[in-house]
Amino acid sequence: METRPRNGKITEYNQPFIEQRADPYVLRHNDGKYYFTASVPAYDRIALRCADSLTGLASAEEKTVWTKHESGPMSRHIWAPELHFLFGKWYIYFAAGEQDNKWKIRPYVLECLGEDPMADEWIEKGKIQRSDDDIYSFEAFSLDGTVFENKGEWYYIWAEKVSVGIQISNLYIAKMESATKLSTAQVLLTTPDYDWERVDIWVNEGPAVIKHDGRIFVTYSASATGECYCMGMLSIDENAELLDPRAWKKERYPVLGSDPEKGFFGPGHNSFTQAADGSDVCVFHARTYRDIEGDPLYDPNRHTMLMKVKWNDDGYPVFDYENMVR
Amino acid sequence: METRPRNGKITEYNQPFIEQRADPYVLRHNDGKYYFTASVPAYDRIALRCADSLTGLASAEEKTVWTKHESGPMSRHIWAPELHFLFGKWYIYFAAGEQDNKWKIRPYVLECLGEDPMADEWIEKGKIQRSDDDIYSFEAFSLDGTVFENKGEWYYIWAEKVSVGIQISNLYIAKMESATKLSTAQVLLTTPDYDWERVDIWVNEGPAVIKHDGRIFVTYSASATGECYCMGMLSIDENAELLDPRAWKKERYPVLGSDPEKGFFGPGHNSFTQAADGSDVCVFHARTYRDIEGDPLYDPNRHTMLMKVKWNDDGYPVFDYENMVR
Repeated sequence: METRPRNGKITEYNQPFIEQRADPYVLRHNDGKYYFTASVPAYDRIALRCADSLTGLASAEEKTVWTKHESGPMSRHIWAPELHFLFGKWYIYFAAGEQDNKWKIRPYVLECLGEDPMADEWIEKGKIQRSDDDIYSFEAFSLDGTVFENKGEWYYIWAEKVSVGIQISNLYIAKMESATKLSTAQVLLTTPDYDWERVDIWVNEGPAVIKHDGRIFVTYSASATGECYCMGMLSIDENAELLDPRAWKKERYPVLGSDPEKGFFGPGHNSFTQAADGSDVCVFHARTYRDIEGDPLYDPNRHTMLMKVKWNDDGYPVFDYENMVR
Repeated sequence: METRPRNGKITEYNQPFIEQRADPYVLRHNDGKYYFTASVPAYDRIALRCADSLTGLASAEEKTVWTKHESGPMSRHIWAPELHFLFGKWYIYFAAGEQDNKWKIRPYVLECLGEDPMADEWIEKGKIQRSDDDIYSFEAFSLDGTVFENKGEWYYIWAEKVSVGIQISNLYIAKMESATKLSTAQVLLTTPDYDWERVDIWVNEGPAVIKHDGRIFVTYSASATGECYCMGMLSIDENAELLDPRAWKKERYPVLGSDPEKGFFGPGHNSFTQAADGSDVCVFHARTYRDIEGDPLYDPNRHTMLMKVKWNDDGYPVFDYENMVR
């Protein structure tokens, strides 16, 4: 597979970890195994990889565990799958559109009937269900759902668009009563407030959760998916009320953006995992060139890359291309 | 005119200052004169009062300065007019719908051709214009525009609804380049985050600005217009970046709500003025009873009331029915 350096280059920093896998997601399970999934360029299926080490994922066999429908819900734009283990079972959260309405993107869930996500059967659990008192969530373009646990409770964070006409993508949070249903109405976590979140289109999406030293950090991606795509960050004390949006702090500037010199363009839609020694790793995608022919959404060369996460004296994560896993 | 105490009462606290005037607005001009305007129950016109004293407004003659059109824009639901003097002229900001589409509410401006808003001619300046780089503002139900000056620049705050289907009313802020046009794209100031902003419908509306001791406070109204209607508050240091929504602090709880004992139901949509001695006064509407027959929007008995604004040791305003102007 060729990685063409159109107005770009392969440098000592930007060698892809896995080529042509966007919205990359890595899970280190409590048995030490690593799992990988991501959006594939055809947006037509969900594939998993499993390996005994993080770096082993690069060459691990990819197994398709679910394929899109021919029509109707979940028949197009299969995006951003994530594998999670909660309420005692394996789940895959993903977003999908419809053949006849490719922008009718909604969040869906698969459930594994056994204990081995690579080998056991996956069944469809339908669309994520909002809480009974919520008349707003998942009415519009919504995607990039992720889940995390805090103080024994599970939370769901997702991106959803609002406004009439051209829309704005925001991030919302709610508590979960099960792996497939929310128990509280949506709360707005962040909307594109700043210039760097408003390039071409106003977007906040791709939330990813990491905890460190009593704080919860949520990185997210902003702006259109070209060179302007970048990562912002929210944070909160783990003892605060996570459903109070004013208890979250939002960084005024991006925490990671393009670096033409080092050959990174449009970094974002990350997830977090740990190396075997427990140190934190940021899994993200980026292109190695700036100029895209046609719609960026259908340019396949968003590659999965790995970066070590360092922590500063204030307990905040530092994202720096000097810390790429090579 | 009768003020019927249906499940309510007239108490020593809740005597109306002006009956059946909702969304009340008082301006004390720099020549010492007081002006009053408000939504009238028929929602069909804009009327001004002028007096030499605040209390004189109660008995001042009301002059209609503009009447709704027969059809098209500004032909129905003439709401929440405010009189302001900026860029050297008098303006009236208001919201209006259309006969054929009563919920197509948009913000409009009138300009006075002379120096006397009571006597001189008013002309229509059309809809408020968003900035050239803003494709979002005033596309949907939008109303309750107010303006204020800080550090030599003028700002516009308004309410606008988002979402598909049933909508959510948020508050936005932008800078103004003239009395009729904004110079920056919308920034989200507040959305209904908390339970008390989400009763029946999710609403933030009716912003009003008051400054005190280096801080800018914006009160606003939340929830549906029945008993649940109440006032929330934002604040910011006057030296901060007013277009940075994260620089604003939002109060976790309402600053003024219903008080059945004292006979106030659904207080809100306030404005601020000063008494002759320069002390601050909150002008708001409330009903004197809880039970409304039919649509609250067409119940005429939202009365204008006055409350002295006290300031606590932290420099924050205190809203207390013990401080009504009687």
